[in-house]
Amino acid sequence: MIPRYSRPAMTAIWSPENRFRIWFEIEAHATDALAELGVVPKEAAKAVWERGQGKVDPARIDEIEREVKHDVIAFLTNLAEHVGEEARFVHQGMTSSDVLDTCLSVQLVEATDILLEDMDALLAALKRRAYEYKDVVCMGRSHGIHAEPVTFGLKLATFYAEFKRNRDRLAAARDEIATCAISGAVGTFANIDPRVEAHVARKLGLAVEPISTQVIPRDRHAMYFATLGVIASSIEHLAIEVRHLQRTEVREAEEYFSPGQKGSSAMPHKRNPVLTENLTGLARIVRGMVIPAMENVALWHERDISHSSVERMIAPDATVTLDFALARLTGVIDKLVVYPDAIEKNLNQLGGLVFSQRVLLALTQAGASREDSYRLVQRNAMQVWERGANFLELLKADKDVTAKLSEAKLEELFDMGYHTKHVDTIFARVFGE
Amino acid sequence: MIPRYSRPAMTAIWSPENRFRIWFEIEAHATDALAELGVVPKEAAKAVWERGQGKVDPARIDEIEREVKHDVIAFLTNLAEHVGEEARFVHQGMTSSDVLDTCLSVQLVEATDILLEDMDALLAALKRRAYEYKDVVCMGRSHGIHAEPVTFGLKLATFYAEFKRNRDRLAAARDEIATCAISGAVGTFANIDPRVEAHVARKLGLAVEPISTQVIPRDRHAMYFATLGVIASSIEHLAIEVRHLQRTEVREAEEYFSPGQKGSSAMPHKRNPVLTENLTGLARIVRGMVIPAMENVALWHERDISHSSVERMIAPDATVTLDFALARLTGVIDKLVVYPDAIEKNLNQLGGLVFSQRVLLALTQAGASREDSYRLVQRNAMQVWERGANFLELLKADKDVTAKLSEAKLEELFDMGYHTKHVDTIFARVFGE
Amino acid sequence: MIPRYSRPAMTAIWSPENRFRIWFEIEAHATDALAELGVVPKEAAKAVWERGQGKVDPARIDEIEREVKHDVIAFLTNLAEHVGEEARFVHQGMTSSDVLDTCLSVQLVEATDILLEDMDALLAALKRRAYEYKDVVCMGRSHGIHAEPVTFGLKLATFYAEFKRNRDRLAAARDEIATCAISGAVGTFANIDPRVEAHVARKLGLAVEPISTQVIPRDRHAMYFATLGVIASSIEHLAIEVRHLQRTEVREAEEYFSPGQKGSSAMPHKRNPVLTENLTGLARIVRGMVIPAMENVALWHERDISHSSVERMIAPDATVTLDFALARLTGVIDKLVVYPDAIEKNLNQLGGLVFSQRVLLALTQAGASREDSYRLVQRNAMQVWERGANFLELLKADKDVTAKLSEAKLEELFDMGYHTKHVDTIFARVFGE
Amino acid sequence: MIPRYSRPAMTAIWSPENRFRIWFEIEAHATDALAELGVVPKEAAKAVWERGQGKVDPARIDEIEREVKHDVIAFLTNLAEHVGEEARFVHQGMTSSDVLDTCLSVQLVEATDILLEDMDALLAALKRRAYEYKDVVCMGRSHGIHAEPVTFGLKLATFYAEFKRNRDRLAAARDEIATCAISGAVGTFANIDPRVEAHVARKLGLAVEPISTQVIPRDRHAMYFATLGVIASSIEHLAIEVRHLQRTEVREAEEYFSPGQKGSSAMPHKRNPVLTENLTGLARIVRGMVIPAMENVALWHERDISHSSVERMIAPDATVTLDFALARLTGVIDKLVVYPDAIEKNLNQLGGLVFSQRVLLALTQAGASREDSYRLVQRNAMQVWERGANFLELLKADKDVTAKLSEAKLEELFDMGYHTKHVDTIFARVFGE
Repeated sequence: MIPRYSRPAMTAIWSPENRFRIWFEIEAHATDALAELGVVPKEAAKAVWERGQGKVDPARIDEIEREVKHDVIAFLTNLAEHVGEEARFVHQGMTSSDVLDTCLSVQLVEATDILLEDMDALLAALKRRAYEYKDVVCMGRSHGIHAEPVTFGLKLATFYAEFKRNRDRLAAARDEIATCAISGAVGTFANIDPRVEAHVARKLGLAVEPISTQVIPRDRHAMYFATLGVIASSIEHLAIEVRHLQRTEVREAEEYFSPGQKGSSAMPHKRNPVLTENLTGLARIVRGMVIPAMENVALWHERDISHSSVERMIAPDATVTLDFALARLTGVIDKLVVYPDAIEKNLNQLGGLVFSQRVLLALTQAGASREDSYRLVQRNAMQVWERGANFLELLKADKDVTAKLSEAKLEELFDMGYHTKHVDTIFARVFGE
Repeated sequence: MIPRYSRPAMTAIWSPENRFRIWFEIEAHATDALAELGVVPKEAAKAVWERGQGKVDPARIDEIEREVKHDVIAFLTNLAEHVGEEARFVHQGMTSSDVLDTCLSVQLVEATDILLEDMDALLAALKRRAYEYKDVVCMGRSHGIHAEPVTFGLKLATFYAEFKRNRDRLAAARDEIATCAISGAVGTFANIDPRVEAHVARKLGLAVEPISTQVIPRDRHAMYFATLGVIASSIEHLAIEVRHLQRTEVREAEEYFSPGQKGSSAMPHKRNPVLTENLTGLARIVRGMVIPAMENVALWHERDISHSSVERMIAPDATVTLDFALARLTGVIDKLVVYPDAIEKNLNQLGGLVFSQRVLLALTQAGASREDSYRLVQRNAMQVWERGANFLELLKADKDVTAKLSEAKLEELFDMGYHTKHVDTIFARVFGE
Repeated sequence: MIPRYSRPAMTAIWSPENRFRIWFEIEAHATDALAELGVVPKEAAKAVWERGQGKVDPARIDEIEREVKHDVIAFLTNLAEHVGEEARFVHQGMTSSDVLDTCLSVQLVEATDILLEDMDALLAALKRRAYEYKDVVCMGRSHGIHAEPVTFGLKLATFYAEFKRNRDRLAAARDEIATCAISGAVGTFANIDPRVEAHVARKLGLAVEPISTQVIPRDRHAMYFATLGVIASSIEHLAIEVRHLQRTEVREAEEYFSPGQKGSSAMPHKRNPVLTENLTGLARIVRGMVIPAMENVALWHERDISHSSVERMIAPDATVTLDFALARLTGVIDKLVVYPDAIEKNLNQLGGLVFSQRVLLALTQAGASREDSYRLVQRNAMQVWERGANFLELLKADKDVTAKLSEAKLEELFDMGYHTKHVDTIFARVFGE
Repeated sequence: MIPRYSRPAMTAIWSPENRFRIWFEIEAHATDALAELGVVPKEAAKAVWERGQGKVDPARIDEIEREVKHDVIAFLTNLAEHVGEEARFVHQGMTSSDVLDTCLSVQLVEATDILLEDMDALLAALKRRAYEYKDVVCMGRSHGIHAEPVTFGLKLATFYAEFKRNRDRLAAARDEIATCAISGAVGTFANIDPRVEAHVARKLGLAVEPISTQVIPRDRHAMYFATLGVIASSIEHLAIEVRHLQRTEVREAEEYFSPGQKGSSAMPHKRNPVLTENLTGLARIVRGMVIPAMENVALWHERDISHSSVERMIAPDATVTLDFALARLTGVIDKLVVYPDAIEKNLNQLGGLVFSQRVLLALTQAGASREDSYRLVQRNAMQVWERGANFLELLKADKDVTAKLSEAKLEELFDMGYHTKHVDTIFARVFGE
């Protein structure tokens, strides 16, 4: 998490202020429940809210922690400095992890809600641009080699569908980590009634963790970060598509290049796809956090704290980076400059070679075996590659071909509309409209 | 995938025979649909089934592939050798990936169904043993240090809940990859009607892929393998728990050691937790496949084939290894030898130190501040660590403690039942019973 | 490790036959040393060689292992079946890991020696092709965007230098794992004299491990596999370069496409860079083994066996895959079809825009500030991008430019030779000639 | 990189101030060399040093970058604000990457020098404690199960040797990244003389990069971060050893627990190995950066900028985290509290079972076959496990044993000194003394 790749709303979630605010709420809600159960005096619960809310001080907590070497104890000590002697009723029967883990759940939920909004914005941009270019025929490429025509809108619709799946996955990942555990030292509720947990969970919008040890089980977090890793990989996918489209020889689309921008300190002519290259790198970073999160699952016995340092780093880093990346990607798509002329030029570059399959099928329909048809088409196609000849003319000049297909029939096959006839069907499938 | 860590049913899914069987079915079902639509003769479709089913020969296909360097073309050529000239109607308008990707979906679904059964067996074993030891009190440990009592059944119930979540994740992962794409060269259905895809999907029990390029999008597979990585991490979690329980100084449980087994070539006295150590390693292997699967997402344009070599290796390796690991783990749990005497001995090792929190809470309830209470308890507890003293006796001898809590009250606090009073509640949450 | 991506010499290293051959040699050499030290009878050592060499039978060992569940014991039992009662002197004071780990060292050394040969072949191919195209000017691209000219030979020389570094790293990695440990159950030589270790090490061409536990420390293997991961990444690097050069719009080079080869089952016109795409995937696979190898380092106490299952899979998989990949890559480079015409066409595509920096520098030399120079050059360059104008003509027509630089001077700046003047210097640096 | 896990000297290396200081030096040294070659006026070079050194202002650069969206151009613009019109001679013929990459080399070298010092401190601590406990016999454990005796000093010597290897690897990794490239836009030296590069390299203590594209090749950085990943894995290795030794049932050693420290908010009796648990997590984090660094290798053509965002995060994160971790680990080892009484108690826990191998060997020496000997020893050993019997007594009572070995001979075999006789030899190997 570095400022260059961070946005303030997401960063704020991971600030000490927000963390201590959530800690306070967990403790205060728990004290309410304890008071309701008669374990602690009702006045104490009231005092906590009245004298404690908004008072805990990160700097002071740091100072205390340097002595006691335990962050939750430092927090409780600072809270007691404000609340006074009723503070002794706070945290009754709870363990630090009850606070820490439930807080992490709240923070991850808050972060995920931002990410879901990010996804919605990206989906909206993809959809808008997909419809804008729904019928703009462009070259489809497999292996980086011209294959058959698609439309530019289909390209974008593909990514819409991919990010729609990612949105669903993210919503499922949110459910994974939206749980609350207030179960005491080793999860047995020996010193705290399960109703406290239920109360706090309800107040914070979390589910109750059915069984915890000292901690919320880390398979949940592993699944969460794995999901972010998949989303990052999709970001890389779209970023690489844009980078390819912008490379000089293709140049069918280009990241928006603002007036005043400079592409290179040395070469004033440069306009580089730096945003999508950046996204490619950010994807690697988020993906690099997946394995550490998985390695966190196998904690010893009722918990060890090895997961903590990992999460202190990857929870902010992964969510902040992904938020930034999604927003940047949305900007790229929103402002993507598309060059229909270049699209058309590339489409026609190989003189109709992309109709090779249609000719193949027509030959088999006309009675040639699949193998013979393939050989006939391929031998003409190879000449286009090798000496730049016009594919249609070659076919017309090939007696073995014309024995099966007339010139008129051949010309008929070279029809772009043939390739786009199902675009509306596909759009309906994707956008449900 | 090596024989040592493989089971035959899962291995068979990835055999050439099974792959070609599925390829055949895809082609034959597609030809049926094409015939129904009038694109190819109905006799051709019939001929494919009648003369082709069960006939394709892996060895012959290998031979052809060495010449044409393309596996699907080699398959079609071999099919034609059996079906005869009607074979030219097979694969009409389809692209190799239609066959390959849909086949991979079928194989992954088959593999997942085995994995789901494996999970069910593991869950059953965990549940049975959890109830068996539901009320056997044992030491709970955080940081590897004695914390407070839990029960051995609770330990197992924790893992039951974790693997139950994994089962749900696996079912979701199955949905991710259970799709069929028969959409032609670049996914536009230019040369093939979408109804063919619908027919094949239905016959194979798959969903239709709403929008594909030349391939089924690889974010699906990334999510699938990421899920396997999480499951592998949970296997490691349980394996490490068993390894800890078996270490000589703990020895609360032990992998079954069969008559005739030898633990070490050098030291005849050894009985090692080799199965769970092995599982720890297998988890690393499966987890190592997650990032390659994620790197497969960003294919170029309408596809490149870089994902293929990855999947040829990780699809069998990950599913075969996980199947083996789950089965091995089920065996370990099923036959786990539990030593209640050792459990009890460990529980009592520190002379009641594990009741420290309860004393702390009682002191605060009796009017001491949280900080003072902590100090009082800690100063006595440290002496247990340092010179092995009896905790209860120390407390009784501490005037500051007895000023708040009578000897009788102190003795009352040292009660194991206090820690297990919510075990039934937790079991009800986990097992829903 | 699947046959499709394997070569026989490397695969043979990992066969049971080779493993048992090495085990035998370790035991036989050790028995020699024990005999020399007077610990066992000399006749026994002789009997082992005479009656045991070439006799151990993988199938029989498997059979025994199924009962005793321990592979080394199974091996020793089978050996005893051939050697007779003198076999009891074999393995005296040794532990299984002495055999297993030293064997793994031998196998990894054998594998590395093949990989070093592979590297040499690749380096030779790169060097030959680099000199062949040393002076063929081609477009240099940063960000996928035309930058300034390089030569095609420089491109290849860059990769030569990269693989030369990799060769050095591999040689260092070989040293990492070329150690022998015959130190007994927990590495103390309690039951075996250190001179046995020294003898076996010398016979096998290994160094003595200075201090071992029950096993050779796994940081060595982690470093080894990490090095393979770096090499795999360089393979990906070169593979992606070729894939880019072959993409239809660039097509400056192409993988050799053999007569009879078919690029696509559907589209007969296709010639795809399938070999380098395949290499891209194989690189992911090898890289995916790095983290598991690193996770193997932290074995418990004097060893646990969790590393074993990992290494049984990744040691063959990584070396076999890398061997295959290096050989395939060498073939690609050796037979790479280069298209000088296309190279020249691409070079001229933007009408001299690539000389923008030289104009910038000339302007600053002529007294303009860096910022003004940049602005002048950029405003003309942007017009080339936007409307395809000729860069030199634009500059000539820009009064602010011509106020500093005459038309003649401008023309002089548009000189390709200017960019290639240091090619020989660079080649001398790289190839040391 | 978060303050909690950072130390100031390492953090300072990655501050904007240090970065811009290095940028300035690169540019100023390059201008010197250009002046020497007569490309720019000598006064200009002088002016840069005199008016520019120490003047560039991170905040102002940020401000400019927001407009021009290019960091090096922003830096040069700010530099010009201080230097005046001579600033136009700065950066002549260079590209941004010349500055950025050479700066990264300098920073990584600075960081590595700190890491090497960290390693030296750790090695010194390990050596001191190793000698302190050289002859303290303790239980050696394989698979977590008692095996045969080692000494506590041997344990530490093992780690000394492992970190000594890591130190050598780190020194090699330093060489990997200690190179300078000032080769212009695409590495051809078209606009800048190679002698400039040589001058800057010399001044900065770097080697000349033999061939660069626009960037220093990223296989170097991949190797660097892979090496950090191996070191992190060794840190985890030692951390886990300490955690095991501290677990309650073992408790042979303990992290230093300072007065005033609190182990748990809920349980005042707790003293947890939190430092080594923390190190376990930090190791995961550093290891998670290895794959992203490897994914950075395959940049497109003469470079793309996807590596940049990765390195902006992992270069500081990995070095800062590793520095912190090494220092923390050194502190743990330095202050590790070792409990010789507990060590001895554990050693004797199984009543001499650890001598099983010696009995086995004695039986074979006395004429029993290896298989029979094994069976005899094992059947007695299993009874120790199963009913806690005394091993020596069991053997004495076993007629088949005593037929081969007298009681006196048996007693002789149960000798701890037998296991430690080669400790000095091993120490001499490791410490070379």
